Amino acid sequence: KKSMQTVSSDQDSVLLIEANLDDEDGESLGFAMDLLLEAGAFDVFFTPIFMKKNRPAIKLSVLCAPAERDRFASMLMKHTRTIGVRYQRMQRVIMKRHFKTVETRFGPIRVKVASHGDLVKQMAEYDDCAKAAREYGTSLETVKQEVNRLLNS
Amino acid sequence: KKSMQTVSSDQDSVLLIEANLDDEDGESLGFAMDLLLEAGAFDVFFTPIFMKKNRPAIKLSVLCAPAERDRFASMLMKHTRTIGVRYQRMQRVIMKRHFKTVETRFGPIRVKVASHGDLVKQMAEYDDCAKAAREYGTSLETVKQEVNRLLNS
Amino acid sequence: KKSMQTVSSDQDSVLLIEANLDDEDGESLGFAMDLLLEAGAFDVFFTPIFMKKNRPAIKLSVLCAPAERDRFASMLMKHTRTIGVRYQRMQRVIMKRHFKTVETRFGPIRVKVASHGDLVKQMAEYDDCAKAAREYGTSLETVKQEVNRLLNS
Amino acid sequence: KKSMQTVSSDQDSVLLIEANLDDEDGESLGFAMDLLLEAGAFDVFFTPIFMKKNRPAIKLSVLCAPAERDRFASMLMKHTRTIGVRYQRMQRVIMKRHFKTVETRFGPIRVKVASHGDLVKQMAEYDDCAKAAREYGTSLETVKQEVNRLLNS
Amino acid sequence: KKSMQTVSSDQDSVLLIEANLDDEDGESLGFAMDLLLEAGAFDVFFTPIFMKKNRPAIKLSVLCAPAERDRFASMLMKHTRTIGVRYQRMQRVIMKRHFKTVETRFGPIRVKVASHGDLVKQMAEYDDCAKAAREYGTSLETVKQEVNRLLNS
Amino acid sequence: KKSMQTVSSDQDSVLLIEANLDDEDGESLGFAMDLLLEAGAFDVFFTPIFMKKNRPAIKLSVLCAPAERDRFASMLMKHTRTIGVRYQRMQRVIMKRHFKTVETRFGPIRVKVASHGDLVKQMAEYDDCAKAAREYGTSLETVKQEVNRLLNS
Ligand code: NI
Ligand code: NI
Ligand code: NI
Ligand code: NI
Ligand code: NI
Ligand code: NI
Ligand code: NI
Ligand code: NI
Ligand code: NI
Ligand code: NI
Ligand code: NI
Ligand code: NI
Repeated sequence: KKSMQTVSSDQDSVLLIEANLDDEDGESLGFAMDLLLEAGAFDVFFTPIFMKKNRPAIKLSVLCAPAERDRFASMLMKHTRTIGVRYQRMQRVIMKRHFKTVETRFGPIRVKVASHGDLVKQMAEYDDCAKAAREYGTSLETVKQEVNRLLNS
Repeated sequence: KKSMQTVSSDQDSVLLIEANLDDEDGESLGFAMDLLLEAGAFDVFFTPIFMKKNRPAIKLSVLCAPAERDRFASMLMKHTRTIGVRYQRMQRVIMKRHFKTVETRFGPIRVKVASHGDLVKQMAEYDDCAKAAREYGTSLETVKQEVNRLLNS
Repeated sequence: KKSMQTVSSDQDSVLLIEANLDDEDGESLGFAMDLLLEAGAFDVFFTPIFMKKNRPAIKLSVLCAPAERDRFASMLMKHTRTIGVRYQRMQRVIMKRHFKTVETRFGPIRVKVASHGDLVKQMAEYDDCAKAAREYGTSLETVKQEVNRLLNS
Repeated sequence: KKSMQTVSSDQDSVLLIEANLDDEDGESLGFAMDLLLEAGAFDVFFTPIFMKKNRPAIKLSVLCAPAERDRFASMLMKHTRTIGVRYQRMQRVIMKRHFKTVETRFGPIRVKVASHGDLVKQMAEYDDCAKAAREYGTSLETVKQEVNRLLNS
Repeated sequence: KKSMQTVSSDQDSVLLIEANLDDEDGESLGFAMDLLLEAGAFDVFFTPIFMKKNRPAIKLSVLCAPAERDRFASMLMKHTRTIGVRYQRMQRVIMKRHFKTVETRFGPIRVKVASHGDLVKQMAEYDDCAKAAREYGTSLETVKQEVNRLLNS
Repeated sequence: KKSMQTVSSDQDSVLLIEANLDDEDGESLGFAMDLLLEAGAFDVFFTPIFMKKNRPAIKLSVLCAPAERDRFASMLMKHTRTIGVRYQRMQRVIMKRHFKTVETRFGPIRVKVASHGDLVKQMAEYDDCAKAAREYGTSLETVKQEVNRLLNS
């Protein structure tokens, strides 16, 4: 899974593709988000906007690798009603990251270790925590606090 | 025009009708707002919400006279894709109001005079200010400030 | 599935439970939505709000059967950081509905038939359309239009 | 009308001009949107944002031809309270488009035909559909489905 | 401070007062929130909405004691441009709560202990954590994790 | 104070730094906004967005001097849970501005005088107006109208 990969550089660049949709319903937008993520987009997000003629609308934003512009632009034109997309390249500062596993009373939980200069952050993986919370009938918060307790002790 | 009528009571009650729409596009919503206002709704507004399956959606809210429930509920079911609406009655505290006209260098502008106990507020009517701003090639702000200057001097 | 059941009355009442969350992150909110829907809530939705101390926040709303108040209130207190929930009963006008299946070139698609007085609406089920769009490599829109074409011809 | 013109290229570039407004009311923003669109902006949209000192605010975005920067920047400074605007140039991938007219039982409706590579999309014009829905006392959805039925049969 | 008081009942009722503001700027709204909270409102929050004539707007909501209706309605009419407010009474299920203090390496931090039936939640007070984070040049997250570690060990 | 400085150029460039936060709560975001503004950011704002897995989220945006990129990127990584930020440089058209003081019946109020070509705008400073409104027990609107009356007479 992309979000679980080790990253050892501290900068890169991404493409931000956007379209304003005032003639698309929420069902279609939810479906488009699923397809875009499955196709390898780094991130997909919706911003509520307001357009002419009293139309509530959604700005659909996709972050992807710059080389993938044509593929994602075509997906947007196929799976939404937009007749055009705009895009720009952005630079990023990113934290280096790798993964480790912590054994907890709720089973093993993967932890992302991210660093930049002196700063080190450790964050329990959502998917593992959510799965553990379901299995043990407890809350997500309880699982995360248990991981943090082990990491800090 | 409803919003230009004199009001001499200081409380009333209204009906709030709502529907969550995750399968409606902005074009249809803008059209529905127009129709509902033309049909006598006191107010129609859209709230961006987020629903299941990653769907951005809109909560459509209508404020109307309590006796008009069936008529507006039917309009919502005809002009949107909703298959049901929920509603509740709310009480209101309202300011008494009447209208006067101020002669300005941008022509006559109607002013709403609203009062409640000791409090008196005077507010230039948007439609007149917008019309004047267009005719005189100036900004809405300039017209409103001129009205306020005359009211306060 | 609840949303696929035949409904033959045209009014009912629901409970709206709400909590303002300024100390909860999106991961937890997404997880809570899943759990609440699995537990039988009619609808769960998020509204972006803005609270004191410059805090962007979320109003979590749950629509459920009035008799289920305690169960859902407890879930909210267990799975979010809220220390209280507010609620109110609302009446609803709802459309009677039943289901039929249409055979299309993308396979069988269920259609919801909703009626209220003279008004009849037919709407292709999202889950079936999405599944068909994936299988046939086409867009959701294309599947829906095919269903509508068959329903209208 | 700009949105009804034939377009035969498949890429261009636009200027995105933005301003954050925490001291502007909705009436003025609605008026500014009207003026900007009348002045030839490609698109104008509002994004709800939250700023310092507990201020809900609006980001006003204008998409226009790159050569029009000064004209639209000046309009923003005249018609809103902003004391500055920021801008950037963005590239676009756009679908070629032309228009045709379909005769329906609700009268003639123009249809936008947009294409990009193998992909062809046909979309009924909102203004024609809305006008027809009003004249025939039916819903926008009913008119659009009729157009789609004729296009697909 | 109201939010720091011991609460020993598990239900109460509140008044929700609301007004839709399409002619108010963000500066005024931020100021009104401050005044309303200082005057004893339980909660004040803003919801972005969209109203007629292309107006982005804000729904201002106040939660207060039912007996305080007139005082808060008058404040809303004095400090915003609204000419009326609507309101409704809502019931609440609330968690009992008291406070304790935890000694941490960042100094003493108050902790809210909330309970309902079997459920007990402990939450570090924001104001104390924020003050400690500033004094020790660390992040809010670091302080909160330290409190949680002590509470869970 | 930065917003009170005389500005005599009419264009400059700024850096826009952004991060999407789906695992951060409102308390932390409000705290981060305070720290970023104290550290010299020109502007900090939150945009409600919707991300995968049904997560309501916030896009945090910072406008700062281009030379300050590393400092603000590091603050974002320290004070939020983000593991990366994206950024872009934007050009600005800005109004020249200086300040003057107006003596009113509510005491002295500073006024920003902004100009660009023929356009001149005068705007009463929020902080002075808010302080005066508190001292005199009146509304912010009343103070602003008094300043405008003096400026326009
Ligand atoms: Ni359109
Ligand atoms: Ni191409
Ligand atoms: Ni549905
Ligand atoms: Ni009926
Ligand atoms: Ni709190
Ligand atoms: Ni109980
Ligand atoms: Ni300002
Ligand atoms: Ni210039
Ligand atoms: Ni108005
Ligand atoms: Ni009264
Ligand atoms: Ni994450
Ligand atoms: Ni670095």
